[in-house]
This record gives sequence, C-alpha cells and structure tokens, in this order.
Amino acid sequence: MDEFGIIARYFAPLAGEGSFGLKDDAALLPARPGQDLVVTTDTITEGVDFFAFDPSGDIARKALRVNLSDLAAKGAMPAHYLLNLSLPHTITPDWLAGFAAGLAQDQREFGISLLGGDTGATDGPLTIAVTAFGFVPQGKMIRRDGAKVGDAVYVTGAIGDSGGGLAIFKREKHSLSDTDRDALIARYRVPQPPVAFAENLRAIAHASVDVSDGLIADLGHIASASGVRIVVDGEAVPLSPPLRALWHDNALLRAVAAGDDYQIAFTAPPGLNGPFTQIGRAEKGEGVSLTVNGKDVALSKAGYRHF
Amino acid sequence: MDEFGIIARYFAPLAGEGSFGLKDDAALLPARPGQDLVVTTDTITEGVDFFAFDPSGDIARKALRVNLSDLAAKGAMPAHYLLNLSLPHTITPDWLAGFAAGLAQDQREFGISLLGGDTGATDGPLTIAVTAFGFVPQGKMIRRDGAKVGDAVYVTGAIGDSGGGLAIFKREKHSLSDTDRDALIARYRVPQPPVAFAENLRAIAHASVDVSDGLIADLGHIASASGVRIVVDGEAVPLSPPLRALWHDNALLRAVAAGDDYQIAFTAPPGLNGPFTQIGRAEKGEGVSLTVNGKDVALSKAGYRHF
Repeated sequence: MDEFGIIARYFAPLAGEGSFGLKDDAALLPARPGQDLVVTTDTITEGVDFFAFDPSGDIARKALRVNLSDLAAKGAMPAHYLLNLSLPHTITPDWLAGFAAGLAQDQREFGISLLGGDTGATDGPLTIAVTAFGFVPQGKMIRRDGAKVGDAVYVTGAIGDSGGGLAIFKREKHSLSDTDRDALIARYRVPQPPVAFAENLRAIAHASVDVSDGLIADLGHIASASGVRIVVDGEAVPLSPPLRALWHDNALLRAVAAGDDYQIAFTAPPGLNGPFTQIGRAEKGEGVSLTVNGKDVALSKAGYRHF
Repeated sequence: MDEFGIIARYFAPLAGEGSFGLKDDAALLPARPGQDLVVTTDTITEGVDFFAFDPSGDIARKALRVNLSDLAAKGAMPAHYLLNLSLPHTITPDWLAGFAAGLAQDQREFGISLLGGDTGATDGPLTIAVTAFGFVPQGKMIRRDGAKVGDAVYVTGAIGDSGGGLAIFKREKHSLSDTDRDALIARYRVPQPPVAFAENLRAIAHASVDVSDGLIADLGHIASASGVRIVVDGEAVPLSPPLRALWHDNALLRAVAAGDDYQIAFTAPPGLNGPFTQIGRAEKGEGVSLTVNGKDVALSKAGYRHF
C-alpha cells in the first residue's frame, strides 16, 4: 500500500475539524476569539523512546501523550494534532491497524482529532513526530518563568514509574510481583499526563513544566527561567509502592533523574490541596537541590539527554 | 554537544515571536482577529528527498520551502515554523552551523521565524520535519475542491527542473553545459516556491495545489476533489531550456511525472495574464488527460509515491 492508501485507510477516519479529510495541502485553524493557541511538538523514535516490540496502539498513545503532557503543563486544553510518520518498510497492515486504533482511543479519551501530517518510508528506525494544538484563554498560558521566592513546589502523580518500567525492559534484575512489574511497564509504554487538571492548574500555578527530562532537570528549567533556587524535600517526592519495591533505597535518587514521567511540576502559593503533592519550595538563589533528612544530596545525573 | 547545547547555540538565535526563546514546553500563537491560521507539515529524509552530501544550508532551505510551497498554494502568507530534527551521530558542528545559516537566510527571505521544535539523535538517516504556519483572511484559504467546469488551468514557473536535477545525481547520461547542469541541480536542492504570489493567487484562483507529487498527479487531486476532468495541453506546459536539453523528446512526459517542483497549479477564469502559464482547462467528467498534437497521451506514471 502506498502513502495515499495508508492515509485513506488508516488515518482519514481519524481526521476532524479543519483537516479537510486529509485531502488538501494544508489544514485550517479558524481563530477562536479570546483564546490563544498553544503549540508543542515532540518526536519519539524506536529504540530510544519505545521498543519495536511494543504494541503499536501503545506506541501511538505514547506519541500523543508526550505532547498532551506539554499542553497540560501550560494549562491548555488539547484540540488537534499533526502526525508525521517515518515508517520502516517492514511495517504491516496489522501494525498500522493497531496504531490507528490507539490513536482513535486517545482521541476519544482526550477530545482531540487529527488535523494533518505526512507519511513516508524510511530505511531507519520508526520515527513519529506529533505536533499538538491546544487553547488557553488569552494571556493565560502558564510559563516556566513565573516562579516566585516563597512559592511551594508541587508535582502531580508519582515520579519514576516510567523509568522503572524502562529498567525492567533493559533486563535489570528484580523480584517484583507480576502485577507490580506490569504496572511499571504500563507507565513506560503509556504515560498518564494529567490533561483534565490543566484548567485547575491555570487557576493556581505561577510556573509549570512537564516532567519529561527528569524531575530535577525539569525543575532546573523553572529555576533558571524564573531566577529562583528550588529546594526539593526528598522524603516528600511521591514514589509508588511498585517503584519502591524495584529500587529500594535507591528509589528516590533514581526516580528524580529518570525522566519520561509526563507529570506536571509547578510552583504556586504554599498550603494548597488537590491532586498533587507538595515536594519543595522556591528560594532566593539559583539551581535545584535535593535534601534528604535535612542534608543536601549530590545530584550526579541531571536528567535524560539525547546525545 | 547535547540537545540543549545544540538548541541554545544554533537554533535559539532563530527563534521569534511566540517561541519564548525555545525555553518553554510549548509555543504560543495569539489569535489574529479576522485571520485564519493555515498549517502544513512535510518531512524530508536523507536518501529520499536529499543527499547526505548536499550542503547543509541547502537541506535546511529545502525542508522549509517544501512547506512554504503548500502555504503559498493555499494563498497563505508564511509566519512561523516548527523544526523536528532527527540527527545521526555523525553530524558535525560545521554541518549544524551551515544548516542554521540556511534557515536564517530563508527566514530573512520569507519573513518567518522559528517557533519551536525538538532535536534528537537517530541511528537512521537524517530526518527533518517542518511544520509551517501562515495566515489568510478569514474564510479565504484556497482549497483543492473549488475548480469549476469552464475554468482554465494554470501553473507557475517551469515544470520538471527538479526531476532533471535528481536524474543527474542518479548518474543519468547527459551532454549539458555546466551552467545548464548546475541550474537543474540547484532547482532540486533549493526549490523556488512562489511565496510572494500567494496574495494575488487568492484574488483569482478557484482551486489550487502545490506541485510536489508531479504535475499530473497533483492536478488529479484537484480533479477528484472538485469533481471535474482536467485536460492538459502538453505543448503549453512550461519547460526550461536546460530541461529540454537534458531530456529532449521525452522532456514533457518525464517532467509532468517528475514531482518536487514546488510550483503552484491552479484553476481560475480563462484568459488571465500574470506570472503563470495557461496549460489546460477543466471540463465535465473526471481524471486528468494530457494531449499532444490534439491526441491523448497514455500516462504510465502518475507521480511520485513513497512506497
């Protein structure tokens, strides 16, 4: 099947408003009065961000969700996405059908639709670039540079589970139950960004970032953009029981450097309650420090880097 | 250099309005009252759309221009772009500097700026996805489906030069002068989409497409979207002197199937004059036919396909 056949069979059924059924040179986004458009793009690559043997529906959902996570961290409600696919010649119709089904599932879950994209063949690894579009009320996008001295630092969800799942795939030895093992693997394969939380986040956050490079590295982005120092209280960082069972005493230090969490770290006034955990505070100064039992811990690995 | 270093050194200087200096999770496009946003995306891949030995600045400009061509065909003025780069480990700082210089050159030429993107490493071929954003007055995007029976069919520029350049790279025998050879190669490496023509095009075109798959194939997209038959007068198709010198009697048939032209084919009322050539007409029926000396020519190859 050529690219036109693939698009017509698998992707045209996913196309929504503004896409012209994927049958034009471009897509159209009519302006929404009083709304700003938030745009983000992330590429995932076989062997780096997922494995060739992962179910294709999970790969599709990961490609979408790593982008929905960025939109959520900016306080934006997702609306559309573009899909750029570089497909190895070994891809089968079954693989494509599963991939499209994964996209369809997440379109329903998050209320988004396919706006456009392109499909080509590659001699290299499967590569998927998604560009996601969301909307925020005018001027209300949450940036990285709004943290204030005296803010508390919060994070949604638990940190490190995805890194734990990856470690298991990399054949790290463990004695987890099948349930715990599968829970961590599931978090690696299909991130759970807190998309529905974006609207509440806008009401409280001064600065926000999605946790993708690693908690400490991403808080470093807020610290440097905002001109503050962030102190993380190690005991407060939320770690799941399966992750503690996998990494024991090393769980905290590995979790905060692991990356691929797709949760949201943000600063806001202290003392707030909600679907998040207070893990630290913003002070005068620069950089990020991690304290355990009141002592600074040396941070050897700041986060995941591609090179 | 890691991805953050590459972004800071080579790409942050190219970042413009809405990009936050490439230092946030997402970019922001404030709504422009009375304007629709037109979005298009195309990936180019080493070994398919360009050669590894092509100058990196030319590769950058091709990656941009194949997208600017889509915007122009829709009557949109370009404004921003996203850049998703998958870089082989062999990429050097010199290569990156040339690539960024090529982007900078075209940013000046077309009045666009970098909005965001991502950079990662790959074990496969160099892959570059660009997503381009342009604006049209509300409701004025030119679509593929507006051709009317009785319209004339026009095309900008000349057809087939890029295909000629590619044939030369593929070691097809020829007896061209160095000047002619270089002219065709230049068109393959750096397309010349008629970006400035977009505004005039909006005033006259009923339907429009960018010529990327091949003139006949792309006119087929207009014919099928609009429900008309398009008849192309072979003698009228504009072919450059270097291309005629390369392909002689086969020039027309090869040119109309070659692809990679990045010119605009459109339908509009007959008898118009401008920076374009009338090459045919829209009739009742379906499909595309090519006539030479008043006779239909069999079309063996409808256009370039990736699979």
